[in-house]
Amino acid sequence: MTGASICTIGDEILIGQITDTNSAHISRALNSLGIKVSRMVSIGDDHKVIIDSLSEELLANDIVIVTGGLGPTKDDITKNALAELSKAENFKTDDRQLEIIHRILSARGLDILDINLAQASVPDTCDVIPNRLGTAPIMVFRFPEERFGHKATLYSLPGVPFEALGALGDIMDDIKANYSLSDIYHRTVMTYGVAESALSKMISAWEDNLPSDMHLAYLPNAITGVRLRLSVYGAEDKEIALKRIETELDALKAILGDIIYSDRDDTLQAAIGRILEANGKTMSTAESCTGGMISSLITSVPGSSAYFLGSVTSYANEVKTNVLKVPAEIIEKHGAVSQECVAAMAEGVRNLTGSDYSVATSGIAGPGGGSDDKPVGTVWIGVSSAKGTETVKLVFNSDRNRNIERFSSSALHILYKKVKKELNN
Amino acid sequence: MTGASICTIGDEILIGQITDTNSAHISRALNSLGIKVSRMVSIGDDHKVIIDSLSEELLANDIVIVTGGLGPTKDDITKNALAELSKAENFKTDDRQLEIIHRILSARGLDILDINLAQASVPDTCDVIPNRLGTAPIMVFRFPEERFGHKATLYSLPGVPFEALGALGDIMDDIKANYSLSDIYHRTVMTYGVAESALSKMISAWEDNLPSDMHLAYLPNAITGVRLRLSVYGAEDKEIALKRIETELDALKAILGDIIYSDRDDTLQAAIGRILEANGKTMSTAESCTGGMISSLITSVPGSSAYFLGSVTSYANEVKTNVLKVPAEIIEKHGAVSQECVAAMAEGVRNLTGSDYSVATSGIAGPGGGSDDKPVGTVWIGVSSAKGTETVKLVFNSDRNRNIERFSSSALHILYKKVKKELNN
Repeated sequence: MTGASICTIGDEILIGQITDTNSAHISRALNSLGIKVSRMVSIGDDHKVIIDSLSEELLANDIVIVTGGLGPTKDDITKNALAELSKAENFKTDDRQLEIIHRILSARGLDILDINLAQASVPDTCDVIPNRLGTAPIMVFRFPEERFGHKATLYSLPGVPFEALGALGDIMDDIKANYSLSDIYHRTVMTYGVAESALSKMISAWEDNLPSDMHLAYLPNAITGVRLRLSVYGAEDKEIALKRIETELDALKAILGDIIYSDRDDTLQAAIGRILEANGKTMSTAESCTGGMISSLITSVPGSSAYFLGSVTSYANEVKTNVLKVPAEIIEKHGAVSQECVAAMAEGVRNLTGSDYSVATSGIAGPGGGSDDKPVGTVWIGVSSAKGTETVKLVFNSDRNRNIERFSSSALHILYKKVKKELNN
Repeated sequence: MTGASICTIGDEILIGQITDTNSAHISRALNSLGIKVSRMVSIGDDHKVIIDSLSEELLANDIVIVTGGLGPTKDDITKNALAELSKAENFKTDDRQLEIIHRILSARGLDILDINLAQASVPDTCDVIPNRLGTAPIMVFRFPEERFGHKATLYSLPGVPFEALGALGDIMDDIKANYSLSDIYHRTVMTYGVAESALSKMISAWEDNLPSDMHLAYLPNAITGVRLRLSVYGAEDKEIALKRIETELDALKAILGDIIYSDRDDTLQAAIGRILEANGKTMSTAESCTGGMISSLITSVPGSSAYFLGSVTSYANEVKTNVLKVPAEIIEKHGAVSQECVAAMAEGVRNLTGSDYSVATSGIAGPGGGSDDKPVGTVWIGVSSAKGTETVKLVFNSDRNRNIERFSSSALHILYKKVKKELNN
């Protein structure tokens, strides 16, 4: 199996200024080609450290992907280290990158300085893949077998995530063209409401009986739930492989039932949106403790204006009574965090916006504000449509921002179930 | 100078399931003690790889901090590797952790299985720091000078970020008790609206003239702006050191003026909240393209209910006219993305909620919906108070979710400036 290492160069990572998000993206791309990542390493902007560390990684791996160390003010260190590592005698200028540098800086109305033009200059030992999204080119160093005991390739990418991810397609194409990889196929289903460990218990018999060339990955996420990705490795025929995955997933769906909310890589907000849009229905939200996060998640989906009318964050009780028309008696009698209040909020925002569906939340995110019968972490969630209004009470046990996240994703899940039941059956 | 390495153990990082956020937090904590992080490494759940990699890091560093590899289903691999590395002959049970395991699982209403109790069992070569937030204890292995050529300490922390970060205080205390560190003091100021590179140019003369024991770090963040952290290393007297930092920061403030919005580690939403609360004033938001993100950011601050009344996300034009009372003629004549509309939204939500201040947004986040004169990335921002309503147009050039982020943080910044000018002078 082809193996890889991912290296990040830059003091800003080592001092914790920046969290390295590139490596996870690169790793997923390599994995989807069936390439195993054995290590990830972050090192500083230091000539000797760069040469020593990259040599070590090239000795142990077929492919080394490097990000960072290529900004206009500091790329000399990385480039000189790569020149020495690859025994380059000269630098060459890549005209395609030069043109891109001119284009990008002109579009931004910036002067083109020598320091910018120097970015198109690279060791003459590398192939260049132009970087269309930024000024630093992608360098590919191909080492013959004699050098590290096996054919080894080093790809040097810019550190800016936008540019690094933009270059990934080209890098993967280059890898596919230069390595004979076993094919790998995936399918993903989305689950919500069951923790990874419990999910694993529910499906252990099914998982244990998977054919040996199939592998299940659990990919948990606080907002979207646990993704389950089923892969088949080394398949000879794509159609047969996908059909075999399909058969296994059908068995999985029979076990998990409603716990699965989508049979593609998805989010609750996108799944809700698809059902609403397909049925010509609309929605709105009324949020207290979630403070606008549900609305923010819904509108993170491109095209959400087709079905999302709007929302009211009713933090103050007066906004609940004046805007959402929650009867003041309800709040007096039951409090704002109550079944009665959240039902009235859901119905109120549906009336106010004229939407077909609505979801409402009222709870205590903390750190303060809890009581014995309504502790911090308590939330009432209401969903409403012409067919009726339902409410659910949940209690979480975390800090303010994680409580708000869990309140929001739970509310989306409850709305999803209602929308699906009423519109998709 | 004391040096450290941070290691992450876990296949889930290598296959890109999880982005490692622990290392950046740990690195910042070490840096604030004046400890330099030389490398970060991520490795898989493999006995030999763990021993080889950790040995290598212990040879090169005084302190190695390990996270991960300690879940109930897989901690055997890491613990056995640590036992072998530290030449442990037996395992011991830590009673304090055992008690925590009982308490946590009972509180969650879960059965206590042998696999859970086994988490309190550790190699007898380590000191234990109880983990109050989870079931896996923190292990501290202290290696004498003979072993790796220098006194070396390995801290093993759970991988769950909530637990790893929760343990950081204890780890730093242990390091301070066992290493003679040169003292280091920091002060942070927050800037908004100027990119790191431009900021660096503006203050380069000041930065170049800093005393040699002072260091400036740039910590950029899309939502909160660029943090500038000034540190003094190896100070003998805390009071003198802080006074010297203060003097330099006064000079910095004179250069940057309004670009600095806070002289502590802060966010725009917290800074706005402090001014409002101190003056007994309230606010609300009316959001179109930002879809609730401003409201969500405001309410992420604990205690925001003291000054935040609520918000309306008016995605549909009918919500703008019916709820916010934006005159329909404005939308017909100027469109929803216009100076007139965003001013009417800001005034509308202030009337609706009775708040003293309000901020409103209307723009085109993309990917669709742009036109020649209102391209994707265009946003109108309005802020309103009894003293008047002001509007600003900005154009960004990014993808949907990054545009929404920039729209939101810009709106917070414009509101901050108004609130500060009217209430804080």
